[in-house]
Amino acid sequence: MKTVSVNTSKPYKVKIGKGLVDKLAEEIQKVKNCKKIAIITDDNVGRLYGKKVESLLKDFEVCYFEFSNGEDNKSLATVSDILEFLAKNKLTRSDLIVALGGGIVGDVAGFAAASYLRGIDFVQIPTTLLAMVDSSVGGKTGVNLSAGKNLAGAFHQPCLVICDQNFLHTLPSEEIKNGLGEVIKYGCIADKKLFDLLCTGDVFCNIEEVIYTCISIKADFAARDEFDKGDRQKLNFGHTLGHSIEKATAFAIPHGQAVGIGMVLICRWAQEHGLTGAGCAEEIDGLLKKFEMARKYDFTDEQLWGAVANDKKLKGSDINLVLLKDIGESYLYKTDVNGLITK
Amino acid sequence: MKTVSVNTSKPYKVKIGKGLVDKLAEEIQKVKNCKKIAIITDDNVGRLYGKKVESLLKDFEVCYFEFSNGEDNKSLATVSDILEFLAKNKLTRSDLIVALGGGIVGDVAGFAAASYLRGIDFVQIPTTLLAMVDSSVGGKTGVNLSAGKNLAGAFHQPCLVICDQNFLHTLPSEEIKNGLGEVIKYGCIADKKLFDLLCTGDVFCNIEEVIYTCISIKADFAARDEFDKGDRQKLNFGHTLGHSIEKATAFAIPHGQAVGIGMVLICRWAQEHGLTGAGCAEEIDGLLKKFEMARKYDFTDEQLWGAVANDKKLKGSDINLVLLKDIGESYLYKTDVNGLITK
Repeated sequence: MKTVSVNTSKPYKVKIGKGLVDKLAEEIQKVKNCKKIAIITDDNVGRLYGKKVESLLKDFEVCYFEFSNGEDNKSLATVSDILEFLAKNKLTRSDLIVALGGGIVGDVAGFAAASYLRGIDFVQIPTTLLAMVDSSVGGKTGVNLSAGKNLAGAFHQPCLVICDQNFLHTLPSEEIKNGLGEVIKYGCIADKKLFDLLCTGDVFCNIEEVIYTCISIKADFAARDEFDKGDRQKLNFGHTLGHSIEKATAFAIPHGQAVGIGMVLICRWAQEHGLTGAGCAEEIDGLLKKFEMARKYDFTDEQLWGAVANDKKLKGSDINLVLLKDIGESYLYKTDVNGLITK
Repeated sequence: MKTVSVNTSKPYKVKIGKGLVDKLAEEIQKVKNCKKIAIITDDNVGRLYGKKVESLLKDFEVCYFEFSNGEDNKSLATVSDILEFLAKNKLTRSDLIVALGGGIVGDVAGFAAASYLRGIDFVQIPTTLLAMVDSSVGGKTGVNLSAGKNLAGAFHQPCLVICDQNFLHTLPSEEIKNGLGEVIKYGCIADKKLFDLLCTGDVFCNIEEVIYTCISIKADFAARDEFDKGDRQKLNFGHTLGHSIEKATAFAIPHGQAVGIGMVLICRWAQEHGLTGAGCAEEIDGLLKKFEMARKYDFTDEQLWGAVANDKKLKGSDINLVLLKDIGESYLYKTDVNGLITK
């Protein structure tokens, strides 16, 4: 087992290990003295692991809420349903929410935890590679609005994150690829060694180490810049165009893989403008190819950059693009979004 | 003009003065360099002041959102509508929300400001006495759920509060009484002098001073205990039973006046148990009578205490009741809610 300490305003631990979820009750008791626990999950994960996790928590008074899987349900309507469920079950500020699932479950349940009684504690149990290495750590929670992804939400840190790689056994290969998009990102922005390990292809025999490395990088950024005002924005490498790609394909290309393409495109653009060292885009694209990730798309530059104008990271018309100096080294580049669109 | 500095994690100023809203643009420019401003209000206030405030902000790009007045609209549905409106109007993190109205507008617009892009700045312009002395200061925002009042929300401090007592000229007398409930509360929990001033009846010739005193008390509590874990709970004096009364009367007795009755009832209960000095309930009831506030109700003790079991301030089955030692001096009294209900 490995542990990463996340030193945000409310510090907490991320524990990573095979079969770790079996000790869930014990791990919860270490961080929180509570009577009631609300398990929040979606129907996909619920079918596979709902009963198991419920039985692991038999020493607590457990209530269980399941919503339909899919990006459409990452909505205020789902958060509203969860809030009403928590109130109906009379959870108090000394009780706990367990978010069991992928990124959508964590984001939605985390936002509900942030909002219920103006904030109660929650534990993240990510069941996808993407959620393990990215969304379960750092306290960003949120939902989509009609105008775009993640436009509403809250910063709310979990009190514990349990990463059990046994969950990955039931994960479809498309979902593994989705997680790899973010894993590659960490290599690109901060860790050449990780990038080189990925290039050897030896990811799955080293999965605990890979997850640990990614979470350590994320924890470091989140602790230094919890509210995303500076350096943490580097974690958005590939995301500005990635979000556009998700939207333009109506989420047919899912988040992690869209970020994969987004990284290649922004590097290609930056290389053309002399802002990124030669060959980076090609190296990243090589990894996408190796892992059989999405690389093709059929939309225009206008579509791609047009959606950027709605990016929530805009400040007035300025945007901070995340660019690579080289693989393993990133920087923020402030530019006017209108210049990009008309380009 | 008087100014109160609120030294919460994000410090800000509350400015109090007749006609102060006329300098709104100037006051905003002192705290925030923004291009776009979204005015959020309800139809009641909008009809009276919407156009005026819009015209005061002509140097900015202004968008305007109005929702129907009333407690029913202090809901996640209204917050959702506001969030979609902000996204449609492409507000960014460097833009600003102005909440123009009473407590419901401030709570709903404040929660939307807390949630949009995980938090953007907002200015409170309270137009009721209740909102001026209470809800506009201290950063508590929120909405009702089916199970009870204020069960969802966020702590989100405004960047400026403008209290202009000219707004009070158009306020119905019932609304003034509503505010007086909270004003009396401040006297009860922390300021015997304020209570004595109220007993003389000379409130309205001293209204700026009265508002200033109330806000100063609230700012002091909020700065010492921003997230309501200890001493700030004293501000809930009269509120636990007050919320029950609001609910039992389907809001026919509105918040401030329900708090008035709640203060009398909790003092009467505490006096019977030797927990509050003799005569306090009667002194408070005397003020309610003087100001012609609500004093009668027709529901049972079971109804009254039953709703307390849903109070969001419960921790497990424990509740911190706020009791008076005497007028001007309050303390927290922890007890088991089940003992109260079966009483």
